[in-house]
Amino acid sequence: MPRYYRYLGDLLDEGVERISSNELSEKMKVTASQIRQDLNNFGGFGQQGYGYNVQYLYDEIGKILGLEEQHNIIVIGAGNLGQALANYSKFQKLGFMIIGLFDINPALKGESQSGVPIMMLDELEDFASKHKIDIAAFTMPKYTADTIANRLVGLGIRAIWNFAHLDLDLVDKNVVVENVHLSDSLMQLSYNMLQSQD
Amino acid sequence: MPRYYRYLGDLLDEGVERISSNELSEKMKVTASQIRQDLNNFGGFGQQGYGYNVQYLYDEIGKILGLEEQHNIIVIGAGNLGQALANYSKFQKLGFMIIGLFDINPALKGESQSGVPIMMLDELEDFASKHKIDIAAFTMPKYTADTIANRLVGLGIRAIWNFAHLDLDLVDKNVVVENVHLSDSLMQLSYNMLQSQD
Repeated sequence: MPRYYRYLGDLLDEGVERISSNELSEKMKVTASQIRQDLNNFGGFGQQGYGYNVQYLYDEIGKILGLEEQHNIIVIGAGNLGQALANYSKFQKLGFMIIGLFDINPALKGESQSGVPIMMLDELEDFASKHKIDIAAFTMPKYTADTIANRLVGLGIRAIWNFAHLDLDLVDKNVVVENVHLSDSLMQLSYNMLQSQD
Repeated sequence: MPRYYRYLGDLLDEGVERISSNELSEKMKVTASQIRQDLNNFGGFGQQGYGYNVQYLYDEIGKILGLEEQHNIIVIGAGNLGQALANYSKFQKLGFMIIGLFDINPALKGESQSGVPIMMLDELEDFASKHKIDIAAFTMPKYTADTIANRLVGLGIRAIWNFAHLDLDLVDKNVVVENVHLSDSLMQLSYNMLQSQD
């Protein structure tokens, strides 16, 4: 679904109003029947012979993805990656607002990044009592991640976007975790390079 | 395989010398029979009743992943994400060395990030003639990505680590691409959050 949303957004940027499953198939390198199946599963947006209305499909998939509502994000770890996330304007356009960075390095206290304040980790509870936080992004060293994760769960945060290089061991199994393991991704690339030489 | 490598590396850091498939199973939340099957597929490192020699298994999986050889990486796009990658020391430990950042912003010319020089994109061909480049990481805006990708392929680069928010359209289908689509990942997280509320 995120991939459909991305392609449909690109089509809108190009001013395309309608698209057939065959055209979308060619762009996305997915079979047309797969596209029809996927989109029918999610509510049947297509009209036989007329193609899909791009804006309508884009909006409906946005709803399915939960993008109608704004999501507030805090980032734990204001190092390079944390600051890069705060600077990345693309997320805002999708309704993901980074509202705070947290770190334990006193040198960063009171600083900000792209207008996002950097706070100390011991200010987390106070901040959480004053702001709605939907997602915590983890860009801190991995050895602190489990402890902080369970502390966040105690504050009612139900989603973790995890860049820390471990699989989180959460007390509460209802928390949603999405991992981005950059080192794993590089190793996979290295492995695929070897395979492609055979 | 990257995930096994990560867990085995953590075990080594903890000083663990041997581990049974049952213990590894518990840590990795994978069934012991799955672990035995995976590791037997990759050469059969285990000895019944003795468990696995962690160091040996780590080294052998490292070889399978192609980590015995150093990989040189250039990063195209010296914005926040590109600079964050250059600053990330973990990659070096795995043998992935970032040797150059490229951008088109003249204000960055002659700068460096964690000792990695920032060069202008028109210096790419010259740099490539003097250095072995294994991987190009794409952290530039997506509208330039396809053109640059095919230019790199012309320079003999066979692997792209793609953070640009598109699926690359490559002339040469033998090029290995590993995507990290951060916005897609956030949208997936949002979707999973909605689902978990049902």
